[in-house]
Amino acid sequence: MSESNDDLPFRPFQSQYRWPGVDLLAYKEEGSAPFRSVTRQVLFSGNGLAGELRYFEVGPGGHSTLERHQHAHGVMILKGRGHAMVGRAVSAVAPYDLVTIPGWSWHQFRAPADEALGFLCMVNSERDKPQLPTEADLAMLRADDAVAAFLDGLAG
Amino acid sequence: MSESNDDLPFRPFQSQYRWPGVDLLAYKEEGSAPFRSVTRQVLFSGNGLAGELRYFEVGPGGHSTLERHQHAHGVMILKGRGHAMVGRAVSAVAPYDLVTIPGWSWHQFRAPADEALGFLCMVNSERDKPQLPTEADLAMLRADDAVAAFLDGLAG
Repeated sequence: MSESNDDLPFRPFQSQYRWPGVDLLAYKEEGSAPFRSVTRQVLFSGNGLAGELRYFEVGPGGHSTLERHQHAHGVMILKGRGHAMVGRAVSAVAPYDLVTIPGWSWHQFRAPADEALGFLCMVNSERDKPQLPTEADLAMLRADDAVAAFLDGLAG
Repeated sequence: MSESNDDLPFRPFQSQYRWPGVDLLAYKEEGSAPFRSVTRQVLFSGNGLAGELRYFEVGPGGHSTLERHQHAHGVMILKGRGHAMVGRAVSAVAPYDLVTIPGWSWHQFRAPADEALGFLCMVNSERDKPQLPTEADLAMLRADDAVAAFLDGLAG
């Protein structure tokens, strides 16, 4: 079942980063994983496509879940600015920047306090469930000062 | 083989809609099909992804090939403006509009004389080759006045 209404050939962009027939969804079920202020819209799914294209928006001060999984992501930033972590690499990101998240890489997206961060994410339709970090994983990640600052929302 | 250098986790957007390590490719081999002033960049391909994300840019007065194939496309307009045809539906398009091209739908993108049209296109990594229209197909399409105007570069 597709979550998006992509039977229409043309779906014009609307204000507030919405599209006709595309539901504004919760990022994940509340309590299922740590995250803050994230919405999800499925732009293309099904209809013979092996991939899905989703638009995520992280509100000011928000962040996606720190997680990893076997499947990969291809991300293009679309709106605002923020920081992203892939593996132990942290970078500021801005519109049209590309972020490649290989399988099994820890990753997270964070918006600054004063601006939302919106991005497209391509993913396989069939994919495994994300894993959350253990305390040991977090300690390993936090051993890197830049990663620790990023996870504390203090990335420059 | 991936045509894009997506081993780098972060590839910042550069001026002129270019990205580091992403080659500016010919849209198709010259003479293989009718088109005009189109470039292709492969942003994400391989590395476990079942889909590819490409950026196409149609220069002022240019157009993609009028074609159809079994595989589907999911398109998001990124730059400029223009017109697109899907099946016999023609629409003006502008940034962030979504265009769904189901399997076996005739489709084409056209830029106006004074502006380029750039768009993202998600497609399956494994896909069939496009078919070109026969004279009979063209006559069938041109029976629709709006389609004929579009094909003549006269869409409003």
